[in-house]
Amino acid sequence: MAEHPGPFPSVRIVGIGATEFSTASGRSELRLAVEACRAALDDAGLAPSAVDGMATFAADSNPEIEVARALGASPLRFFARTQYGGGDYCGTVRLGAMAVELRLADVVVCYRAFNERSGGRYGQGMGGTPPLASADLAQYSWSIPHGLVNAAGWMALFGRRYMHEYGATSEDFGRVTVAARRFAADNPKARFFGRPITLADHQASRWIVEPLHLLDCCLETDGAVAVVMARADRAADCRQRPVAIRAAAQGAAANQHLMANYYAADPMAFEELDVAAAELWRQCGLGPTDVQAAIVYDHFTPMVLAQLEGYGFCGRGEGKDFVADGHIGPGGRLPVNPHGGQLGEAYLHGMNGVNEAVRQVRGHAVNQIDGIEHVLLTAPPGVPTSSMVLGPA
Amino acid sequence: MAEHPGPFPSVRIVGIGATEFSTASGRSELRLAVEACRAALDDAGLAPSAVDGMATFAADSNPEIEVARALGASPLRFFARTQYGGGDYCGTVRLGAMAVELRLADVVVCYRAFNERSGGRYGQGMGGTPPLASADLAQYSWSIPHGLVNAAGWMALFGRRYMHEYGATSEDFGRVTVAARRFAADNPKARFFGRPITLADHQASRWIVEPLHLLDCCLETDGAVAVVMARADRAADCRQRPVAIRAAAQGAAANQHLMANYYAADPMAFEELDVAAAELWRQCGLGPTDVQAAIVYDHFTPMVLAQLEGYGFCGRGEGKDFVADGHIGPGGRLPVNPHGGQLGEAYLHGMNGVNEAVRQVRGHAVNQIDGIEHVLLTAPPGVPTSSMVLGPA
Repeated sequence: MAEHPGPFPSVRIVGIGATEFSTASGRSELRLAVEACRAALDDAGLAPSAVDGMATFAADSNPEIEVARALGASPLRFFARTQYGGGDYCGTVRLGAMAVELRLADVVVCYRAFNERSGGRYGQGMGGTPPLASADLAQYSWSIPHGLVNAAGWMALFGRRYMHEYGATSEDFGRVTVAARRFAADNPKARFFGRPITLADHQASRWIVEPLHLLDCCLETDGAVAVVMARADRAADCRQRPVAIRAAAQGAAANQHLMANYYAADPMAFEELDVAAAELWRQCGLGPTDVQAAIVYDHFTPMVLAQLEGYGFCGRGEGKDFVADGHIGPGGRLPVNPHGGQLGEAYLHGMNGVNEAVRQVRGHAVNQIDGIEHVLLTAPPGVPTSSMVLGPA
Repeated sequence: MAEHPGPFPSVRIVGIGATEFSTASGRSELRLAVEACRAALDDAGLAPSAVDGMATFAADSNPEIEVARALGASPLRFFARTQYGGGDYCGTVRLGAMAVELRLADVVVCYRAFNERSGGRYGQGMGGTPPLASADLAQYSWSIPHGLVNAAGWMALFGRRYMHEYGATSEDFGRVTVAARRFAADNPKARFFGRPITLADHQASRWIVEPLHLLDCCLETDGAVAVVMARADRAADCRQRPVAIRAAAQGAAANQHLMANYYAADPMAFEELDVAAAELWRQCGLGPTDVQAAIVYDHFTPMVLAQLEGYGFCGRGEGKDFVADGHIGPGGRLPVNPHGGQLGEAYLHGMNGVNEAVRQVRGHAVNQIDGIEHVLLTAPPGVPTSSMVLGPA
């Protein structure tokens, strides 16, 4: 298939920003959001008053209007949300790109801010939420009574099934974390800067929910991340090298469930990945051989393998071999999460991965990959998912 | 300014649907949502499997994936939300239009479903919600301790200020309801079918929050409404006359607050309306003299006057005179809410007004207005707002 300009030919990512990543920010989520937005605007060389559009996650506690006021933005003429947490981080950025492409806003900031560790601990999940009879809460009544109350529990079942179906071992999962921690060790912003691990460390870490060790699970992070988009003509006047959105996709299966997504005829088929991947490659005419690095959503290690398979880097069940062969680490065929990912840098619903993809395209990442033409970003299955391809403008 | 094709030249509204409007639906919000979506697809002559995109309100309890499964939709490749309730109903439809225009989905359904009366009564507001220290909840700490716990209370202050600034009276508000109830009386689907009122009835109705009588306040309704969009080529094969989205805007003030929006230098200036109106007319090159009917968000009567002023049908403070002169009723210069509106038909966050606008453009409304070329839809100030212009394809 020939390369296409995609649905967003006029859109450029012109700025990225983040707070520090910590376990105790010591300040409000609103302040974190505003700091990240301001950092991203400074990176772009744009004043806050340039902003007239915003997009974020429905789960974010910071309304667009509150961030806009605290930031000093212009009146907004675009604001929108995505519903499905980290699975939809590329979808959130896509909403901003849609607005810019259609000239519904000139400058859009996308942000995600939370005190996920020092506030209500995010990893504790839904155990305290009564499963009411509305469609958004009733779904939990199928898993919570069985002790599946949080993300580690919901994902552990996929890990076990992956082992059962493909003969994978805990070591196969652990190699994902070892690669992430090798990258994180070089990244001064990463929570695990200077702290690589061995596979033995992974194996020795305590169980969270079998078959997931502590070191199969992402961080809980206080912090915020923001991304700024503008049209190509304006981008030319911005401070940094502009980055193009070559494609951006969402996908949900016909029988999609949220987190406890156990009801497919084939529980490892992950139709949502197939939908998003087909849409992504259709938009830009590219394929897995055209990307030189990937941001893969690494909340729990088994789901990284599923994404490598779903986007065509290896066959089904072969993700474990792809990783074991060293392809995702430094010097590999497809370096994954060169910032250290959510296992090594920070867990902020994938948005820190967007910042890293932009740095890779610009060419000034800490662990810069050579010869970047396209960076793929993917999100996990088991929820409605999303993906993007970024590249030089 | 010359008429423009606008940002959505390829998009058509091809189907509308709704449940009955009641005070006790006797079934779940999920079922209501699915019934409305199915009705809208039947109206279009499309199978549920044609649907690959959905948009709704963040406040809706029905996740897109739950509605999709129950409906029998295809895997979704677009899903998104708006955050600000009824103020953003046109923004919700706009999200679907953006996806169709950019070919990110072929057929998008937008829906809103709630058991607003038989479930938790929507009009009771936020009184039971603790004002926590997150940005989305902290805002309520400025009004709830003063007894302003719900929409009637928040909006009453605007009503009082309108009276103070412009010499308006309760009768000026009441005429809005009299006009709406005259239209509703002809509409068999309306809650107040066959039940017109006089201004004396309005004056005799009990106080809710002074200066708002019961009959200044919209209904609380159980029900659901849906709208289906597709591209123009597909619309040609659909059952109904396709309707074009000539323009669709959102707007939030630089210092926007939600509901208790009292902190502008000029509290009746409503910058959010100015932002949305300017964007709307810019997109299509039309103006107030180019529309033959309007859907105006009538949750509380004083806010109808503000919208008539904000979209340029009369000067500031002159909304009361525009209404007193009979312009918004049957045979008037700008018939408003010919279905009876949210004061007479149903309150479903404005979405039933979208259905009515489509019927007016098609030419088969109960109270059909002659010579429709464009129908304006507006949403209230005091929250982030939105608007649309619909017309024949």
